[in-house]
Amino acid sequence: MNDKILLAHGSGGKLSHDLIEKKFVSIFKNQILNKLDDSAVFNLSGRVAFTTDSYTVSPIFFPGGDIGRLAICGTVNDLAMSGATPLYLSLSLIIEEGLSTGELEKIINSVYKAAKESGVKIITGDTKVVNQGTADKIFINTSGIGVVPPGVDISGANAQVGDKVILSGNIGDHGIAVLSQREGFEFKIPVESDCAPLNKLVAKMLEVPSAIRCLRDPTRGGLATTLNELARQSGVGIKIDEAKLPIKEAVMAVCELLGFDPLYVANEGKLVAIVSPDKAEKVLLKMRRNKYGKEAGVIGEVVSEHPGQVVMKTHLGTSRMVDMLTGEQLPRIC
Amino acid sequence: MNDKILLAHGSGGKLSHDLIEKKFVSIFKNQILNKLDDSAVFNLSGRVAFTTDSYTVSPIFFPGGDIGRLAICGTVNDLAMSGATPLYLSLSLIIEEGLSTGELEKIINSVYKAAKESGVKIITGDTKVVNQGTADKIFINTSGIGVVPPGVDISGANAQVGDKVILSGNIGDHGIAVLSQREGFEFKIPVESDCAPLNKLVAKMLEVPSAIRCLRDPTRGGLATTLNELARQSGVGIKIDEAKLPIKEAVMAVCELLGFDPLYVANEGKLVAIVSPDKAEKVLLKMRRNKYGKEAGVIGEVVSEHPGQVVMKTHLGTSRMVDMLTGEQLPRIC
Repeated sequence: MNDKILLAHGSGGKLSHDLIEKKFVSIFKNQILNKLDDSAVFNLSGRVAFTTDSYTVSPIFFPGGDIGRLAICGTVNDLAMSGATPLYLSLSLIIEEGLSTGELEKIINSVYKAAKESGVKIITGDTKVVNQGTADKIFINTSGIGVVPPGVDISGANAQVGDKVILSGNIGDHGIAVLSQREGFEFKIPVESDCAPLNKLVAKMLEVPSAIRCLRDPTRGGLATTLNELARQSGVGIKIDEAKLPIKEAVMAVCELLGFDPLYVANEGKLVAIVSPDKAEKVLLKMRRNKYGKEAGVIGEVVSEHPGQVVMKTHLGTSRMVDMLTGEQLPRIC
Repeated sequence: MNDKILLAHGSGGKLSHDLIEKKFVSIFKNQILNKLDDSAVFNLSGRVAFTTDSYTVSPIFFPGGDIGRLAICGTVNDLAMSGATPLYLSLSLIIEEGLSTGELEKIINSVYKAAKESGVKIITGDTKVVNQGTADKIFINTSGIGVVPPGVDISGANAQVGDKVILSGNIGDHGIAVLSQREGFEFKIPVESDCAPLNKLVAKMLEVPSAIRCLRDPTRGGLATTLNELARQSGVGIKIDEAKLPIKEAVMAVCELLGFDPLYVANEGKLVAIVSPDKAEKVLLKMRRNKYGKEAGVIGEVVSEHPGQVVMKTHLGTSRMVDMLTGEQLPRIC
């Protein structure tokens, strides 16, 4: 096989078939994928969750992960945030002509490992190759299908006054880790992307019946944007306490240096849960037993004041409104 | 709203929300999409078909269609080729910073119209914006979910010796129509892309019970590659008759001029069906009643000789082997 990806690898012809058979099907092999028909066909019934995301992160390799791991975790997490058990994923690649097959293999290997960790199967895919200079190395789309267990009803619109707001761990790690690898920035800090599949953490949380009202992963736009979305969708106010936000020192230092607000920096392995107040403690205990929920804590609550808005009690004891992200502080973070 | 797409439209923050609410949700509105949670949730049961495709066609507008129409038809057709009734689609955009909002609106309008024509709903989506020069105007991924009706069993592996090979109409129109708009080529010919949703045509064909063994749309790699795929998957030979291949004069003329073989030129609104021999006439009658099947005809048959290979009886009366596409004659055709 050539050591670089050629336009012909996306032609649909011989080289495409070779690439698909040798590099993808032989790795992801499963009964559904192996049939190689135009669609994957399988039995399913119940409440189905369906989601899609395209990943354009730059650079494609970063401390703690790469675009392959990100593409699996991001979509698995979107399914998990609806309370669904993720089952099947599609994998669609847009490759820039000239990408080395070594880099592609590394990415596919990360996809494989992340899929295995989260317990999902890749059952259908697509590969396109575009001319040099018309994409940036590789973009990946994953779409996912899951099933929502009976009795689970999670939506951004379900928050109620009095509910507790739980955050699963440190914020800002992913954004700062990716930034640290950017051309023109390149700095060394002891921060890795938190990129992780959260479906098993969510499954633990769902063991507490009727506890979870809303779940969302604070990716693009960061914690601030996610909280604003939930406040708006539910028509409630959210109050958080700055003193309770876990932020690594190194992340804080980079943010201060560059003028970023960690509340707006992307995460890829964290979740926000809005939880019935009498069950918050039980949910926290469950979370802390999972490796991605060890640092979980309550960071605030749902209030009747300022509906649709988020207000933070600062370290100084004052209150400030925390708006959605305006503009773009870190493009191509996911 | 700005007249160009900015990086901030993909930030996940305010501009993203404005774009999604004003330009997407207000157009595609349906009960599932409107909830705007991380996943779309709906009830489903039975044999489910799932497929994905990324569209990178260049240029994004061409005679007879654009990347928006293509992104819907291509994925609807992949579902239909598994015998599934397409139901739900995801829509994920990778936009190059600087795309005019007018062009985006035109594309979204095409998406809307093609979804309406084929009867599918857009229920979830994603928007990313990348820096100028790191993509080519817009790439679109659509993934799709459908349900395979009971009793339908269609796969590329089902062809049997004696079966008839049906083609639904002219070949080569899409590839040549797109090529005619390429920079450096630009020529005027009376050929439009055949880009069309074929699910209703397939539904008509399925009215003949136990008739259809294989269905596939000859897109990238053209008719030749599709027939080779079917011959390999089923472990049979396929014999076709050049005299029976419908090709428009203008398409033939361009192919001769540029040294292309129309057998390898992409189509986006055609299908190949391998059909039980005693039911081929009935299937053809059904096909001809649908506007996308009017020119349908038998072009060959499945044979026991040369398993895995396709042989064509030429106009000269000789036989030649028709291999899969090698190399790439027309990159970024879909």
